[in-house]
Amino acid sequence: MRHDGRNPNELRNIHIETNYLKHPEGSVLITVGDTKVICTASVEERVPPFMRGEGKGWITAEYSMLPRATGTRNIRESSKGKVSGRTMEIQRLIGRALRAVVDLEAIGEKTVWIDCDVIQADGGTRTASITGAFVAMSLALDKLHRKKNFTSFPIKDYLAATSVGVVKHAGVVLDLDYVEDSAALVDMNIVMTGSGKFVELQGTGEESTFSASELQEMLITAEVGINNLIGFQKDALGDIVNFIDDRQVLESGQK
Amino acid sequence: MRHDGRNPNELRNIHIETNYLKHPEGSVLITVGDTKVICTASVEERVPPFMRGEGKGWITAEYSMLPRATGTRNIRESSKGKVSGRTMEIQRLIGRALRAVVDLEAIGEKTVWIDCDVIQADGGTRTASITGAFVAMSLALDKLHRKKNFTSFPIKDYLAATSVGVVKHAGVVLDLDYVEDSAALVDMNIVMTGSGKFVELQGTGEESTFSASELQEMLITAEVGINNLIGFQKDALGDIVNFIDDRQVLESGQK
Amino acid sequence: MRHDGRNPNELRNIHIETNYLKHPEGSVLITVGDTKVICTASVEERVPPFMRGEGKGWITAEYSMLPRATGTRNIRESSKGKVSGRTMEIQRLIGRALRAVVDLEAIGEKTVWIDCDVIQADGGTRTASITGAFVAMSLALDKLHRKKNFTSFPIKDYLAATSVGVVKHAGVVLDLDYVEDSAALVDMNIVMTGSGKFVELQGTGEESTFSASELQEMLITAEVGINNLIGFQKDALGDIVNFIDDRQVLESGQK
Amino acid sequence: MRHDGRNPNELRNIHIETNYLKHPEGSVLITVGDTKVICTASVEERVPPFMRGEGKGWITAEYSMLPRATGTRNIRESSKGKVSGRTMEIQRLIGRALRAVVDLEAIGEKTVWIDCDVIQADGGTRTASITGAFVAMSLALDKLHRKKNFTSFPIKDYLAATSVGVVKHAGVVLDLDYVEDSAALVDMNIVMTGSGKFVELQGTGEESTFSASELQEMLITAEVGINNLIGFQKDALGDIVNFIDDRQVLESGQK
Amino acid sequence: MRHDGRNPNELRNIHIETNYLKHPEGSVLITVGDTKVICTASVEERVPPFMRGEGKGWITAEYSMLPRATGTRNIRESSKGKVSGRTMEIQRLIGRALRAVVDLEAIGEKTVWIDCDVIQADGGTRTASITGAFVAMSLALDKLHRKKNFTSFPIKDYLAATSVGVVKHAGVVLDLDYVEDSAALVDMNIVMTGSGKFVELQGTGEESTFSASELQEMLITAEVGINNLIGFQKDALGDIVNFIDDRQVLESGQK
Amino acid sequence: MRHDGRNPNELRNIHIETNYLKHPEGSVLITVGDTKVICTASVEERVPPFMRGEGKGWITAEYSMLPRATGTRNIRESSKGKVSGRTMEIQRLIGRALRAVVDLEAIGEKTVWIDCDVIQADGGTRTASITGAFVAMSLALDKLHRKKNFTSFPIKDYLAATSVGVVKHAGVVLDLDYVEDSAALVDMNIVMTGSGKFVELQGTGEESTFSASELQEMLITAEVGINNLIGFQKDALGDIVNFIDDRQVLESGQK
Repeated sequence: MRHDGRNPNELRNIHIETNYLKHPEGSVLITVGDTKVICTASVEERVPPFMRGEGKGWITAEYSMLPRATGTRNIRESSKGKVSGRTMEIQRLIGRALRAVVDLEAIGEKTVWIDCDVIQADGGTRTASITGAFVAMSLALDKLHRKKNFTSFPIKDYLAATSVGVVKHAGVVLDLDYVEDSAALVDMNIVMTGSGKFVELQGTGEESTFSASELQEMLITAEVGINNLIGFQKDALGDIVNFIDDRQVLESGQK
Repeated sequence: MRHDGRNPNELRNIHIETNYLKHPEGSVLITVGDTKVICTASVEERVPPFMRGEGKGWITAEYSMLPRATGTRNIRESSKGKVSGRTMEIQRLIGRALRAVVDLEAIGEKTVWIDCDVIQADGGTRTASITGAFVAMSLALDKLHRKKNFTSFPIKDYLAATSVGVVKHAGVVLDLDYVEDSAALVDMNIVMTGSGKFVELQGTGEESTFSASELQEMLITAEVGINNLIGFQKDALGDIVNFIDDRQVLESGQK
Repeated sequence: MRHDGRNPNELRNIHIETNYLKHPEGSVLITVGDTKVICTASVEERVPPFMRGEGKGWITAEYSMLPRATGTRNIRESSKGKVSGRTMEIQRLIGRALRAVVDLEAIGEKTVWIDCDVIQADGGTRTASITGAFVAMSLALDKLHRKKNFTSFPIKDYLAATSVGVVKHAGVVLDLDYVEDSAALVDMNIVMTGSGKFVELQGTGEESTFSASELQEMLITAEVGINNLIGFQKDALGDIVNFIDDRQVLESGQK
Repeated sequence: MRHDGRNPNELRNIHIETNYLKHPEGSVLITVGDTKVICTASVEERVPPFMRGEGKGWITAEYSMLPRATGTRNIRESSKGKVSGRTMEIQRLIGRALRAVVDLEAIGEKTVWIDCDVIQADGGTRTASITGAFVAMSLALDKLHRKKNFTSFPIKDYLAATSVGVVKHAGVVLDLDYVEDSAALVDMNIVMTGSGKFVELQGTGEESTFSASELQEMLITAEVGINNLIGFQKDALGDIVNFIDDRQVLESGQK
Repeated sequence: MRHDGRNPNELRNIHIETNYLKHPEGSVLITVGDTKVICTASVEERVPPFMRGEGKGWITAEYSMLPRATGTRNIRESSKGKVSGRTMEIQRLIGRALRAVVDLEAIGEKTVWIDCDVIQADGGTRTASITGAFVAMSLALDKLHRKKNFTSFPIKDYLAATSVGVVKHAGVVLDLDYVEDSAALVDMNIVMTGSGKFVELQGTGEESTFSASELQEMLITAEVGINNLIGFQKDALGDIVNFIDDRQVLESGQK
Repeated sequence: MRHDGRNPNELRNIHIETNYLKHPEGSVLITVGDTKVICTASVEERVPPFMRGEGKGWITAEYSMLPRATGTRNIRESSKGKVSGRTMEIQRLIGRALRAVVDLEAIGEKTVWIDCDVIQADGGTRTASITGAFVAMSLALDKLHRKKNFTSFPIKDYLAATSVGVVKHAGVVLDLDYVEDSAALVDMNIVMTGSGKFVELQGTGEESTFSASELQEMLITAEVGINNLIGFQKDALGDIVNFIDDRQVLESGQK
């Protein structure tokens, strides 16, 4: 049914290469099918003005595409002199999602800058960015944790994102590539934690609508994808997994 | 439980004043509690460059707040020289939502510009904007329809938006005002049609998460609110209701 | 002679609704014929950098129009990314005019931000803005005065503005609406005090000129309008009038 | 009484050097005391989009200062990325003033670009710009007229500008320099024609006001200055004066 | 003598991976030591407005760095809303250099967009960009050539770039890395062709100067580097080398 | 051979008028043939943020052209809202060149702002700017030196710039005017000191290349021009020459 032969609830090929660049505190190259994103995490020893003196940290994200990440060349946002609405939506989403699983008090007055730069796009760049950025951020915060910067390990849970949608002739499917995205009646991005909680849910019927039962089917499909993605993250993170697992247990006990 | 004594699934006071301004083809002042938004619909006899020659219409929206719509004065976006990410997100949402219930082929190569200007803010400005904009747009399109501009009445269904959320000490509630919004663990904006279909679902746990059961409770609560809001829209629209009802029946038959 | 039947020195219908919005320290909705402007006054507890340490206050104004305040929709200045020359001229005029009747030393290091947002335009928006802004500012400063923020009441005189012009077929007329403005050979905006002094005089012959005798006739006509406008301001200000009157007597004695 | 010993109605030293630059169709260096402005007129063979097809010409002006035209260095507007409100006011004024004495139909669909660049500032830069720009424009239009571009000579009258003001300790004075400008209670810029008609009148009491009798005294003083300035323009224009005189006679007959 | 043990005229490790991305007509990842740049070539079927109708092609380049390509994070130029002077200099240089070896008439009215995005920086990013961009451009033009788009193969010669400099304690050296660049008294970028001709020479003594004999030594050293770089380009280009060689012979015969 | 009859190594007419403006600490009008540039030097008692606390001074430059300095009018960069790549390249070059001959430690924490405003352009505006700016800067620093602001005279050597190029039909020539520049195969700008050292060398073959022997011929030709230009600078500088000569001797002894 799907143009590339996948099952409805099957992800594309996933690969996460850690420490991809030499300068950043954390970096990965995440590959989701033909979508490739460089995610880096940079630690700055101060917070934005509106947060100074609160003793809390901050996580913020920026997102961009190389001009020729796509089938036809896009004009650079630096040349246009302004960031598009789409870019702003995506980078606000990435930052918000990551903050949901980080103990900002534990970080202290530091900012973690997440940069997601899409070098090749084939659908799902924002969810690949979140999934990759979680790993890059974990690498950076682990580095600081090992240097005794924190009182406790600050990552409270795993976090991954994927898309689901209703595609013409294929119905509800997981992890849409560009071809499916173009034929989608409904497009939904879902960010979830390792404990199965929702962090963000954005469903849109572009010039279309969706019913309550379609919504339920999409939610179930997404959960399958999220669990698999977290599996790939754990493989990439190595023994950092121990710290996150411990903290996750602690958190679930407190609720 | 709620600071203003409302039931969990009770809207604030709603008022929709139609033909509020003399120049626009359609205009309303919508009041949702202390939130007040002027919504206008302006018809332009051409479409954006990327759509020319397709024979279809377009609907686009802009959103702004007066500097002192809020408790402390905000710097104008015109003075800053750029539109914020929040504004862009909102105006993209409004346009996308309205396009879901309009037959763009029926309009022909025209653009309907929706302007939502918040003159007083107390939470829920984006959902009030959508609910009001639907009425302003209906007034404008009805005017063109009466002048025989269209082959058929172009509005396929009602459309309204509201917010639901999980608020500390109050649980799942409908139509959050500013005080509740500030205390919300989860904030969800929902856009639905008169036929009970979803158009847009945006749920966010800011530095928090939500469970599947909380999600279901929010969805049920939202539906109550949407139905009530559509009731207010029908009162405001007068006999335009007949055209929309006819078209809605036609649409449901086709699906 | 005039297209709406007014006498040459007759104002349009004037209405000033005070405390129009809940958040600002002072606010009015001023209606001059079909021209409607929301004027707000917001008090900030600091002055711009170039004035710090002088112990004086500052009054500054911003002016904007809703996109569809006019017959055809205007592009928002926030979308264009810059404020037009016309807007800058008007907001500089409003601020300068108000400062002429305020004792800035008495205010201390505070800034009063005036925002004039035109929601419906039919000519004379800048003069309506000044007339309305004077009332909004008076409400805000009175509020601070009652809280013992000032050593003396800081408003030294009334201030209102109107337009006069030479219109084809109608001669010298007061308070031009949009139709008259479009047919005007000469357009003059005049700001005056309650004591009959000039604060600002801006007369322009767009692709035309005017003689000394036409100038004198316009000045006389304007004075009639200003006096009537100040009457409406006094009605709106209630017992704040007593403070202004006392200060006005004091000022005239000192000159 | 005046710090430089001038009589109240005495201009500073005036010098107008024509054909100052080799590229522009018309150019002057105008010197008013220590204020020096390069004024150029460039002719473009088309009009702005909003005027196309009307068969009329257009005159538009731009104004700028070298960064060190003033006592302390100003940041360039190109570095700031935007033109200030003051600059916009001035360039709108220059263009509007010149258009009042030009027969735009006679020019046909051409634009005359006026550029006024202040290389040294000592007060009165906007009025010096208008007075100089009139000469530069006349040189350019004369050149086109001699090439038979026009059906009739398009300049209908002379045009000059000066300032008057009420200065502390000196009273009403003509042509304020920077020192006087800084001590002025009232500042008025006046643009007049060779026939003694007003084109523009802009009087401002910055944190001050002025009476009707002060206004009359300023108007009389300004007229003396304008007449003298037009004398200097005539000397600079040489035999172009004949064409303007003829057209001026023609115009006064038609009124 | 050099901190990494290289000889004065020794390049760093060079690697050129062709067809690095799936969408662009030509793409490479070039590695020069720790400097890594993605170079893409995109073909657009039109030329800029100023060249239309001349029957010639155009080559233009853009250059950017990922925020964390460097030791500390740089703010994105899209966030700053403008492109820096350094970026503009570099992208103008890249485009100019490539145009020197391309027969623009042979291309016809097409634009080749070169994008050089530095993902990791360790000195010499602009010269690595040129060397990599030449290969990416060759891949793209070869693809069009094979599709019979051109009358003749349009690349007239090889082109590569490197840096030489005078470094404290090391003297004249080739291909400076970041550590050497920081200690350089003189920095020179040289672009040369396969035939040993200069295309661009930019030598700068930052807060220093250089003598005629130092200049000669730098020129000799650079030539060694350029020849080696062209060897790596030939390896990467495969049988495209035949086309360039043929054209190079043809060109040298014509001179 | 040259269109204006000059010998290949002959400069155009050079004139340097010092103290051209009354406000700046140093100013000249430099004339090179028909190219005229106003160069000013302004001293600010602080350095940019990145240099604070280092006890060193800074020299920075800005460059601009009047809109009608050229044959056809250019749009102002302030109107476009951004500075072009060409302007940035030039102003970076001017600042870098001047810093090479100034003892920044001797200046202390001051910034010298150089402004080069081209009022008439006929080729070679950037080199004329550097040559003129050196004189303006020397005048300003001499003024501070006489007021005992410095421990030692801070200018270490003379500095001038000129262009050489390979022009069709004329071969290697010095100081290209606009006509020659348009016909140049190679364009090279050279900045040198009074001691014959290179400060900056920028040679470009626009859609062309140049050989090693052409390079040598250009270098020899440039040196003639630089020496002559420094002669004109010395004439303009008067007895400031003594201070520079003394410092130059001191510097050459130290090397």
